[in-house]
Amino acid sequence: MNHFHQKHILDMTSLSVDEIDYIIKTATTLKEISERPIKKVPTLRGKSIVHFFHEPSTRTRTSFEIAAKRMSADTFSISASTSSMTKGETLLDTVNTLQAMNPDIIVMRHSASGAPHFVSRHLEASVINAGDGMHAHPTQCLLDLMTAREALGKIKGLKLAIIGDIFHSRVARSNIIGFTKMGASVTVAAPLTMIPEGIDRMGARVAKSLEDAISDADIIMALRIQKERQSNFFFPTEREYAKFFGLTYHRLKEMNSNAYVMHPGPINRGVELTSDVADCSESLIMKQVTNGVAIRMALLYLLMGGTRNAHSN
Amino acid sequence: MNHFHQKHILDMTSLSVDEIDYIIKTATTLKEISERPIKKVPTLRGKSIVHFFHEPSTRTRTSFEIAAKRMSADTFSISASTSSMTKGETLLDTVNTLQAMNPDIIVMRHSASGAPHFVSRHLEASVINAGDGMHAHPTQCLLDLMTAREALGKIKGLKLAIIGDIFHSRVARSNIIGFTKMGASVTVAAPLTMIPEGIDRMGARVAKSLEDAISDADIIMALRIQKERQSNFFFPTEREYAKFFGLTYHRLKEMNSNAYVMHPGPINRGVELTSDVADCSESLIMKQVTNGVAIRMALLYLLMGGTRNAHSN
Amino acid sequence: MNHFHQKHILDMTSLSVDEIDYIIKTATTLKEISERPIKKVPTLRGKSIVHFFHEPSTRTRTSFEIAAKRMSADTFSISASTSSMTKGETLLDTVNTLQAMNPDIIVMRHSASGAPHFVSRHLEASVINAGDGMHAHPTQCLLDLMTAREALGKIKGLKLAIIGDIFHSRVARSNIIGFTKMGASVTVAAPLTMIPEGIDRMGARVAKSLEDAISDADIIMALRIQKERQSNFFFPTEREYAKFFGLTYHRLKEMNSNAYVMHPGPINRGVELTSDVADCSESLIMKQVTNGVAIRMALLYLLMGGTRNAHSN
Repeated sequence: MNHFHQKHILDMTSLSVDEIDYIIKTATTLKEISERPIKKVPTLRGKSIVHFFHEPSTRTRTSFEIAAKRMSADTFSISASTSSMTKGETLLDTVNTLQAMNPDIIVMRHSASGAPHFVSRHLEASVINAGDGMHAHPTQCLLDLMTAREALGKIKGLKLAIIGDIFHSRVARSNIIGFTKMGASVTVAAPLTMIPEGIDRMGARVAKSLEDAISDADIIMALRIQKERQSNFFFPTEREYAKFFGLTYHRLKEMNSNAYVMHPGPINRGVELTSDVADCSESLIMKQVTNGVAIRMALLYLLMGGTRNAHSN
Repeated sequence: MNHFHQKHILDMTSLSVDEIDYIIKTATTLKEISERPIKKVPTLRGKSIVHFFHEPSTRTRTSFEIAAKRMSADTFSISASTSSMTKGETLLDTVNTLQAMNPDIIVMRHSASGAPHFVSRHLEASVINAGDGMHAHPTQCLLDLMTAREALGKIKGLKLAIIGDIFHSRVARSNIIGFTKMGASVTVAAPLTMIPEGIDRMGARVAKSLEDAISDADIIMALRIQKERQSNFFFPTEREYAKFFGLTYHRLKEMNSNAYVMHPGPINRGVELTSDVADCSESLIMKQVTNGVAIRMALLYLLMGGTRNAHSN
Repeated sequence: MNHFHQKHILDMTSLSVDEIDYIIKTATTLKEISERPIKKVPTLRGKSIVHFFHEPSTRTRTSFEIAAKRMSADTFSISASTSSMTKGETLLDTVNTLQAMNPDIIVMRHSASGAPHFVSRHLEASVINAGDGMHAHPTQCLLDLMTAREALGKIKGLKLAIIGDIFHSRVARSNIIGFTKMGASVTVAAPLTMIPEGIDRMGARVAKSLEDAISDADIIMALRIQKERQSNFFFPTEREYAKFFGLTYHRLKEMNSNAYVMHPGPINRGVELTSDVADCSESLIMKQVTNGVAIRMALLYLLMGGTRNAHSN
C-alpha cells in the first residue's frame, strides 16, 4: 500500500485489512518519537485539530492532544457540556460553525450512536470518531490490535476473549469487528443480560461460561463495568458480578496460565479485575495507553496525507 | 493610514472610520492564511494572549484562540465561572494578577457592561472587549462590516435591518454604531418591549412593522432570541415571537427578493429564522464565522504593532 | 553548585540551602525572558508537562502554564473535578495512565496531604507539588524567598511575620520551613484556634499579639482567610477576625513603619488586609506573582537537566 485513502475514521467496518495493517505499521514507526528526549516532529505544523467532546473523557482526549502536539499541530478543545455553542443549536449548526473556522480534523466523541457519521457527510474536515454511543470506538480497537500484535507477533489465528458488559460497550463492538477482520477469533462471556441479541452475527462466539471463554484464549480483555449505565435489569450488584465474572489472579492461572490481559481503562479494581491481575506481568494495560498515543499520531498523520516513513526526515 | 494607534479595542465608538477601514483591509489580507495548507505564520511568536471569559462562550473564544494560534501566539484560557481566582477577589485584583504575569493582550468577556473599559485603564496589556453585558461587542460588528463589504462591495449607502431583541443585544448596539459610522443606514424591528428607549439617538430608525424594516434592506440581520434573558414582560412565547418576527423564506421573498441574511449565531432554528432562510444562498452566516477569525487575527496583529501587508514575508 | 540533582520538587524539607539558592538565582536569570518583546526561549521544546489539578486553581495553574510555554514546552491540563478519568479509578491508576503517555513533568495539586509524594515514588516523570492538602506548597515558598531577597538584598537574618490561619495553611508551613532554613526567623500570629499544636517545633515563634509579631518584622505576610475552610470553631466572624488581626495601613504604620507586605493571593480586601495596605508602596504582592512565573520556569528548567545560564544562548 502506497497511500491511505480514507478521509474519515468512523468505525472498523469501513477500514480494509490492508488499511488497518498500514495504520498499525505507521504507528509502530511513530511510537519512538514519544521516547526521544525531544518528543516532537514538525510534521503537522500549521494543521488545526478540534477536539469536540460531547461526553466527558480525560483519558481519550488527553491521548489525542498529546498525539497532536507531538506532531506540532494546533489543538482546540470544545466540551459540549460546558459549551454555550450548543444551546438551542443543532449539532449540524455547531459543526458547520467549526467548519467555517477551517480546521483540518475534528476528533469527536458523542453520546448518540452515528453522530460522527452524520456530521462527516457535511464537512470538508476529516472526522475521527473518538467513541459514539454504544456503536464504535475505532481508535481503541486499533490500539488494541497494535498491542496484541506487539505481544504475540501476529493477530491472524489468535484467540481473544472479551469479558463484561458487551451490551453497552462500543469497545466490544469495534474489537469484535476489528479482530475478526484481521483473522482472530473472538469469544464473549458475560451475564446473559449483558450479551446483546445477534452478537454472533457480528462474528463473536458466546461462551457457555467464564472458563469456556478464557481457557484457550491468547488475550483476555476485561471491560469496564460502567456503573452509571447499569440498572437492576442488567446487574444485581457489583459484588455478584465480581464473584462470577471478575478476574482474579488465582482464577486466571487456574483457567489459563499463559494469556495476556487487556482492559480499555479506567479500571474498577476489585470489580472486573483484581489488583494482582491488573499489575501482573501478563497485563498489557499500560502498553495499551502508550500505543494509544502512537495510533492517534498515525491517524492524524495519514489523514493529513502522510505516507509511512516520510515523517522520519 | 500608516499605523494603527489604538491600544485597546473596547467599542465601536472609539474607532475612527479610517481605523475601521484599516482593520477590515488587514483582515482581508490575513484571511488567506486560513486557506493555506499550513495555516500558521510566525508573526506573534512569543506573545502571550489571555482569554478571560467571565461569561461562557465557546464560539467567540474558539474564534479568538484559532486567530491567536494561526499567528503563533501562546494562549491561556481563564473561565471565571470555574475559577478559584475570583473567589472573594475584586475584578481589578484578578486582572492585576494577570498583568503581573506579563501578557501582551487580554481578551475579555464579562457580564457587566463597562468591565473591559474599567480594567483597561489599569493595565499595561492591551484589552480586547469580546462582549460586555448589554453594551458592546466590537469584534462582532467588525466581522459583520467585513462580511457586508465582501457581499455588496461597499458599506456606504447600504441599508441594514436588524430584527429581534434590540434591548438586550450588545451586537445590535455595536452594529448600529459601526454601520452608521461607515455610512450605512440602520433600521430596527422588534416587539415594542424589545426596543430600548432612545435607540433612535444612536442612529437607528425604528420600523413600523417587519415589512417596513425589511422591504428595502440590503442586509437583514436576525438576532438570537436569548431565552435565558426573557421574561413574560418582554416576550409572550417563542411561538408568538416567531409568528410575528421570525423570518421564513416565504415571508422574506415576499417582502424583499434580494436581501442578504446575517445572524451572529448560535441560531435558534424555527424561532428567529427558519432552516430554509439559514441555509439559503443569500445567507452569509457561515461567511461571518470565517471572517470572525480573520478580524480577530487582524486585531491581535495591529495591537502588537503590525502594519498592513508586513505579515506577508 | 554545578548541577541540580533533585528529581522532584515535593516540599521545602527535601531541598538544601544550596539548592534553594541555586533555584532562586536561576529564576532571577530567567526572569528577564518575561520582559522581552518575544517572551519565549526554545529550551524545553518537545518536553511534555501535565498539569494535574485535583483542586481548582486558576492562579497557580496559569502561572505554571505561562512558565512552561515561555520555555516552549507542550502543556496538557487535567482537572480531576471534571474528569472521567478518576471515576472509580485509584489515584495511582490515573497517574500510571498519565505515565504511559510519557510526559516529562507532572505538576500536581491535590486535596490530600502527601499525594504528590505517593505518586512520585511510582513515576518516571518528575513531580512538582503545586500544593497538597494542608501540607506543603514549595513553589509558593520559593517565590516568596525570591521576592524577599529582591526587596531586602538577603534572607539570612531577616524577620518574617506570618499573620492568619496558620492551621489550615500549606503556605505557612512551607514558608516556616523555607525561611528558617535560609537563616530568617519566623513569627506567627493568629487567633489561638488557628495556631496548630507544635508549630514552634517547626521553627516558628508564636507571638503574644499582632503587635508583638509585627513590631520588628522586615516582612509581614498576611494569609488568605479561606472562608470555605472555616467553621465557628475556628472563627467567630470575618468582621471579628478583621478587627483583631486584619492589617490596616494605620495599624501597620503605628506598629512598624518600614516592613514590606506580602500575601499569597487571592486577597479578601477588608478581611486580612485593607486596600490601602494591599496597594501601598511597601506591598510586594504583584512582585510575588511575577516572581512566581520565574520560579516555575527555573524549576521546569532545572528538573529537565538545565544548568544556570545555559539558557541564554
